[in-house]
Amino acid sequence: MSISRRLIVIGGDAAGMSAASQARRRDAALEITVYERGRYISYAACGMPYLVGGLVNDPQQLVARRPEDFERQNIRVLTQHEVMSIDIAAQSVSVQPLKGEAFAETYDELLIATGARPALPDISGLETPGVFALRDLSSGVALWEYVRLQSPRRAVIIGGGYVGLEMAEALRLRGIETTLVHRGPQVMSSLDLEMGALASQALREIGVELLLGQWPVGITAARGRVAGVALAEQELPADLVVFGTGARPNGELAGQAGVPLGVRGSIIVDSTMRTPVPHVWAAGDCAQTTHRVTGRPTWVALGTVANKMGRVAGLNLAGGAASFPGVLGTAITRVGETEIARTGLNGRECAGEGLEYASVTIQDRTMAGYYPGAARITVRLYAEKGSARLLGAQIVGGPGSGKRIDAVAACLTGGLTVQDLVDMDLAYAPPFSPVWDPVQTAARVLSSEL
Amino acid sequence: MSISRRLIVIGGDAAGMSAASQARRRDAALEITVYERGRYISYAACGMPYLVGGLVNDPQQLVARRPEDFERQNIRVLTQHEVMSIDIAAQSVSVQPLKGEAFAETYDELLIATGARPALPDISGLETPGVFALRDLSSGVALWEYVRLQSPRRAVIIGGGYVGLEMAEALRLRGIETTLVHRGPQVMSSLDLEMGALASQALREIGVELLLGQWPVGITAARGRVAGVALAEQELPADLVVFGTGARPNGELAGQAGVPLGVRGSIIVDSTMRTPVPHVWAAGDCAQTTHRVTGRPTWVALGTVANKMGRVAGLNLAGGAASFPGVLGTAITRVGETEIARTGLNGRECAGEGLEYASVTIQDRTMAGYYPGAARITVRLYAEKGSARLLGAQIVGGPGSGKRIDAVAACLTGGLTVQDLVDMDLAYAPPFSPVWDPVQTAARVLSSEL
Repeated sequence: MSISRRLIVIGGDAAGMSAASQARRRDAALEITVYERGRYISYAACGMPYLVGGLVNDPQQLVARRPEDFERQNIRVLTQHEVMSIDIAAQSVSVQPLKGEAFAETYDELLIATGARPALPDISGLETPGVFALRDLSSGVALWEYVRLQSPRRAVIIGGGYVGLEMAEALRLRGIETTLVHRGPQVMSSLDLEMGALASQALREIGVELLLGQWPVGITAARGRVAGVALAEQELPADLVVFGTGARPNGELAGQAGVPLGVRGSIIVDSTMRTPVPHVWAAGDCAQTTHRVTGRPTWVALGTVANKMGRVAGLNLAGGAASFPGVLGTAITRVGETEIARTGLNGRECAGEGLEYASVTIQDRTMAGYYPGAARITVRLYAEKGSARLLGAQIVGGPGSGKRIDAVAACLTGGLTVQDLVDMDLAYAPPFSPVWDPVQTAARVLSSEL
Repeated sequence: MSISRRLIVIGGDAAGMSAASQARRRDAALEITVYERGRYISYAACGMPYLVGGLVNDPQQLVARRPEDFERQNIRVLTQHEVMSIDIAAQSVSVQPLKGEAFAETYDELLIATGARPALPDISGLETPGVFALRDLSSGVALWEYVRLQSPRRAVIIGGGYVGLEMAEALRLRGIETTLVHRGPQVMSSLDLEMGALASQALREIGVELLLGQWPVGITAARGRVAGVALAEQELPADLVVFGTGARPNGELAGQAGVPLGVRGSIIVDSTMRTPVPHVWAAGDCAQTTHRVTGRPTWVALGTVANKMGRVAGLNLAGGAASFPGVLGTAITRVGETEIARTGLNGRECAGEGLEYASVTIQDRTMAGYYPGAARITVRLYAEKGSARLLGAQIVGGPGSGKRIDAVAACLTGGLTVQDLVDMDLAYAPPFSPVWDPVQTAARVLSSEL
């Protein structure tokens, strides 16, 4: 009689639960235990701004599956259990429950899926009531409750990335006067400046006040809660402050155990999600991955990537031979009616790679010009000189603009050229597109620059 | 001093005018004359249903550029001038103006862009007032005027393809009681039956009565206009009848001159748009092309393809070295809120090619399930067994569904596999997609069938 192997998963969100679920489907005998530090598992972190904004009315709607759903799959899920350390030699972890004694548990295979956390500036006052950063669903629920119960009137958001923009929209939907402070000359630093300027404009259109080229130096408090944000030369009054200042991988637990760390402290894995340490795997926002355009290591924290990594880890943990080839840096968001998307490399990244590249920006309409509701769309496209290989794209425009980035993402996956995109048989009908899809119009213009 | 070369273009719509315009841009000395049989040039034929439906209020909005716009580009445009014959040996065409004497004109290069015309069933009564088929913008304008001035109450549409569906929606927007007669068991015969059934359902949802498995045997008239459509076993009363029974290429003029014809009588061209006859070119709805999935000759009549072909012809006519690699059979339309799209091969086409293939159909949502406004989407996906190469896709669903076909079209262009699509870094945020885009969910399911 064989003794069943034991899998321990650290972290119960997208990557961890996808892996557990896949592993179970392929291997009925595997003993699977998930330790999750927080109260929730398997939740849609990306949905938190819509909870705060009131588009979603119950945090439970953001929970895809509950522990009991996994228990039925014979996956043991222990929430409010924090793994404090990993002993690689002993193949064990030490676990601290919220209530009760710490204990150790051994594993045959260990999957680290500890996610990411907000990257916060080094200023004082971050713990002041009324100051928030979105760490996990509990923090999202806390912000949601604050907004509903404390009825803040003036919010300051720090950081103009995806989270900052989505939170700005959410707070405007709640009727809160909102100022967004961003260090760069335009929001969305992952876009080139002229495209970032369109994102800045979209924020202004929904009534957000922008303070660009500024950064907080401190938080002020009064009567036990936040009163304002101090910038270099002024203070912004605020009864709500939200940080959207990016994320960093939770790689420390792995690093302290001796698992090698890479880009920004993320856990080094190969395409099968194995770390260099035997029987230790990592997936999701804590893990490093490969940029498919540059071929170099990179790090992203995105639910869709975490799901894919988790699935690959789970298949392999159950004896499969799956691999995850990496990311393109695709991302999308919306501010009011304006959709913002990117994939591949931006100009700064092209230059950083030492690539000889050309880029163009074109303006077009989302539908046939005569069709009612046609909106503006701006497409920026990058390609390598010489090879004409597509390198990246950015899109900002009205409804129907953003998901056009997917066709370019597919081109990047296939290593296609500008001419391939010009020639491509994309879907056309007046309610959907001009005769030449705007990404193809950009490709036509770019082809003359190469 | 060199004598300038003379280009004659037959046909002044998408392909002909694109070619003329491109050729002019590259070669200022070329003498360019366009002969167009009808009154309009450079119009958006695909926009006619929206004119009829009242979403577009002026036929001029469908005209992209007028003859005088081209005259300014030094392109001579003669409307209401029909080319009656081509003399290949003499390198000349004989032209019949609507008013005046026929004349002959010689060319150095000839581009045939005579387009396509409705394919009508062989029944009597087609010329009865109140019976329409969309041939060119003039016929669209005539239908538009009939609908506005004669106020028809009961319409019958013959044919459940793209034009039939779009006309059905247009007439319903006008409040006209509409019956659609279609020969097959479901509308949209270019989809597999289960997807066609969803398109049939979409028509019923906008109040169209469907008669499937039926076909007209005659048109009845009373008091000088149409009174009904006779089917095998019943007669449908109607004061408006519209045929949407497909199209056929206008290849006869070329064929009579000795230019070889191919699929369905379309003009054979290579990827540069040259026919096998020296100095004779063809482009647009009258020309044959290549299916990029099968590598075989095919024929499609679509504005977007005509534009691409025309551009390539124009570049080459001016001494360039462009080529058009062919089509994927991509198409898209909308009925009410339901979007319908396809690319690549359907099941019947896969079987016809003798391909060993697998297919799946999945149901999903267009956005994160918790996001307000998430609509249903059904994706059908095909791949070759063994190689796992993607072969085609069909999508039917609510707003945001249809243009997802473009990512699959890009995959087909790149020859990508099911696994490539599963792994692909497509754009995700709750207002745009579930964590796994529906086309990727289809790919995941399909990967287990291969």
